[in-house]
Amino acid sequence: MSRQSNRTTDNKKMNSELFTLTYGALVTQLCKDYENDEEVNKQLDKMGYNIGVRLIEDFLARSSVGRCQDFRETADVIAKVAFKMYLGVTPSVTNWSPAGDEFSLILESNPLVDFVELPDNHNALIYSNLLCGVLRGALEMVQMAVDVRFAQDTLRGDNVTEIRMKFIKRIEENLPAGDE
Amino acid sequence: MSRQSNRTTDNKKMNSELFTLTYGALVTQLCKDYENDEEVNKQLDKMGYNIGVRLIEDFLARSSVGRCQDFRETADVIAKVAFKMYLGVTPSVTNWSPAGDEFSLILESNPLVDFVELPDNHNALIYSNLLCGVLRGALEMVQMAVDVRFAQDTLRGDNVTEIRMKFIKRIEENLPAGDE
Repeated sequence: MSRQSNRTTDNKKMNSELFTLTYGALVTQLCKDYENDEEVNKQLDKMGYNIGVRLIEDFLARSSVGRCQDFRETADVIAKVAFKMYLGVTPSVTNWSPAGDEFSLILESNPLVDFVELPDNHNALIYSNLLCGVLRGALEMVQMAVDVRFAQDTLRGDNVTEIRMKFIKRIEENLPAGDE
Repeated sequence: MSRQSNRTTDNKKMNSELFTLTYGALVTQLCKDYENDEEVNKQLDKMGYNIGVRLIEDFLARSSVGRCQDFRETADVIAKVAFKMYLGVTPSVTNWSPAGDEFSLILESNPLVDFVELPDNHNALIYSNLLCGVLRGALEMVQMAVDVRFAQDTLRGDNVTEIRMKFIKRIEENLPAGDE
């Protein structure tokens, strides 16, 4: 489904519960459609990626955030601006690797799982995996290849939700033909 | 997926775009899963119903709305409180039937379709049909049987989105055994 060109960036603030339950319906549908949790995780990541590559445009228009100088600035923008804007929560940024190429987003509360308990037969399901795809897709659009995965998940009994992000490389922008 | 008992009703206000795109992913998935638009419409309504029967509890806790005296009050609460809360928009309530048992919610803008154009091969798709199910399910939980359907849809070229709601009957609460 393609994007309307006349869309405005007006602010429609909403509570998260309808989103949370709709997301639950999506995950439930995928669990019906695919044979195992690994495949569902993959699909969620893929869907998230497709969402991220479109959401970034809205994000840049809405936030007026410019190009980040380094990965630390990127981390702050994701946590304080993007998560706040689209999920209504602000994760903390921690666990930096010594090289500064890896960090964790720690969510005290994850709106996606507000109504959820994983059934016993889905213990390999990474329920909120869509978020990893969204982050990966959005960052790719601003020339950053990043590996994103869940390191902890309250749904699996952890105390917090931890998303681990690892910088892979800067993606070269396509140069006009003949410029090299 | 069952509901957690320790959930709080804190306010997580978010912009609607991630929800909109996630909803798009759900509809796209259903279009892959089912043979025709009518079946997708039915599934969206059914999913919405299941969401509505759960969302009503959150709504009552959050809004402190009491039992409505009549269908007019119900209409106002839906438009001014519920839509505002969960979709960030306030439809107008119009086109009352003379008997007062039917009205329309007119949405100048429908957040669910912000990024959407229907492909030509899906012209029977009622893209936002989940909303009808949500309303039907939520109202059933407060003892009102209501018929809900889209009468106009901007996605199909109409100027506004119109949801038509028709009161069918009040559902008798189950009386304790032996009381009748």
